[in-house]
Amino acid sequence: MTWKLTIEYDGSRYSGWQEQKNARTVMGELRLAAEHALGAEVELHGAGRTDAGVHAAEQVAHMRCEKRASTERLLRQMNEHLPADIAVLSVEEAPDSFHARHDATSRSYVYQIARRKMAFSKRYVWWVRDPLDVEQMQSAAKFLVGRHDFICFRAADEKRPEESTIVVVESAEVEVDGDMLLFRIQASHFLWRMVRRLAGALVKVGLGELSVEAFAELVDGRCNSRYPIAEWTAPSSGLFLEKIVYGPQVKRRPASKGRARERS
Amino acid sequence: MTWKLTIEYDGSRYSGWQEQKNARTVMGELRLAAEHALGAEVELHGAGRTDAGVHAAEQVAHMRCEKRASTERLLRQMNEHLPADIAVLSVEEAPDSFHARHDATSRSYVYQIARRKMAFSKRYVWWVRDPLDVEQMQSAAKFLVGRHDFICFRAADEKRPEESTIVVVESAEVEVDGDMLLFRIQASHFLWRMVRRLAGALVKVGLGELSVEAFAELVDGRCNSRYPIAEWTAPSSGLFLEKIVYGPQVKRRPASKGRARERS
Repeated sequence: MTWKLTIEYDGSRYSGWQEQKNARTVMGELRLAAEHALGAEVELHGAGRTDAGVHAAEQVAHMRCEKRASTERLLRQMNEHLPADIAVLSVEEAPDSFHARHDATSRSYVYQIARRKMAFSKRYVWWVRDPLDVEQMQSAAKFLVGRHDFICFRAADEKRPEESTIVVVESAEVEVDGDMLLFRIQASHFLWRMVRRLAGALVKVGLGELSVEAFAELVDGRCNSRYPIAEWTAPSSGLFLEKIVYGPQVKRRPASKGRARERS
Repeated sequence: MTWKLTIEYDGSRYSGWQEQKNARTVMGELRLAAEHALGAEVELHGAGRTDAGVHAAEQVAHMRCEKRASTERLLRQMNEHLPADIAVLSVEEAPDSFHARHDATSRSYVYQIARRKMAFSKRYVWWVRDPLDVEQMQSAAKFLVGRHDFICFRAADEKRPEESTIVVVESAEVEVDGDMLLFRIQASHFLWRMVRRLAGALVKVGLGELSVEAFAELVDGRCNSRYPIAEWTAPSSGLFLEKIVYGPQVKRRPASKGRARERS
């Protein structure tokens, strides 16, 4: 049986999503809770691998198990067994072909920048004490939309020759929300630490330490050793995986039907 | 010199607002930060005494000191010195006659009830696992508005004969906010633990364990030993002091001028 899980978590205490030996991970906690509820081994796979300290408002995972269980029972039992900082929001039955990562068409992340000290949100924001020019940050964010080579936002020691640094960004914006700035970005995939590095560079733009033009050049793959982008990486506390977007489940329909519909 | 401070705090780690020997309190932390910033003793007085574990979105305090300091410097230095879970939102100069508690005309509290597990909010909500009938809770909350004897919401062992149990409630409502229920109540003053006991009784109404009529009788001072109201006290985690309301600062004007204005 296959289920689609939607999960919310505070990543502060975890070494990221992906299961590891000798480390506490979100996926590891989910597996314990699921195997406790089902009394059998499960296969789990998440749509996005969040790093240590990064949160998720809506992570999606698929879970397969030879045993059957109602979605209501799984939801209740997994939540009772999971620690307080991980919550399963929904459990749905899914076709056996459903794959949380491969079927996702895009991911949306949001980075929270606090413009004042916040007593309730230390774990969920980056508090930037100096004044930020929001309009400059908004101008810079516009350059992110479209197809770009984000090679400058990947540090030299992290180069994986097999991985392309081309990313098509569907949307990117900096929004004012009370005393917070929200940097929201949606794309089909992201490079490792890309969102935190972009958030760090945007803050440099807001502080007047990086011009909008220089930011645009970096986004165009014209790297400049004057800018220590890896050092600018924004802290993990402010980052949330916000949403995983799935297209229509074409796999469930026979190909001929799907095509006929497209033509009509 | 006298200042009016507006303060936000997460009460989870504190033994309440009011300073005590051998206990960590919000007021104690504020005093340390203020005396560090001013280099002199200060007199501090809060508008509302929140209990252990209770939060504040906008607590108000007055602070007096023989030394002078700019509001900007006090705000910055106090926030740098205070722990992450206490934030000074604003510092304003105030007339020497200003008294945070005596001058307040009303206080507003909000109690947050979570209807599902919430990974980010455990410290700020009461998670009620069973379904709640919100309409019944809303009907019951309406009975709170007006002048009532809240003697049933004060337990026998807490009776202080000198304190009246009559409270004039200006507004009270239960509002749906996503997966949360917010119980908001405003009055000139509150009895000890009154808001948490009302929240606990309203949840009993929502669960169908207390009728709206029985709730209304309790609010009318017709106590019933069948209802263990003190045992129903909702956990401190869900409670926030939300706002302190001040009337016009009539004290600053000479009485004759004030009267002349009223007549005009």
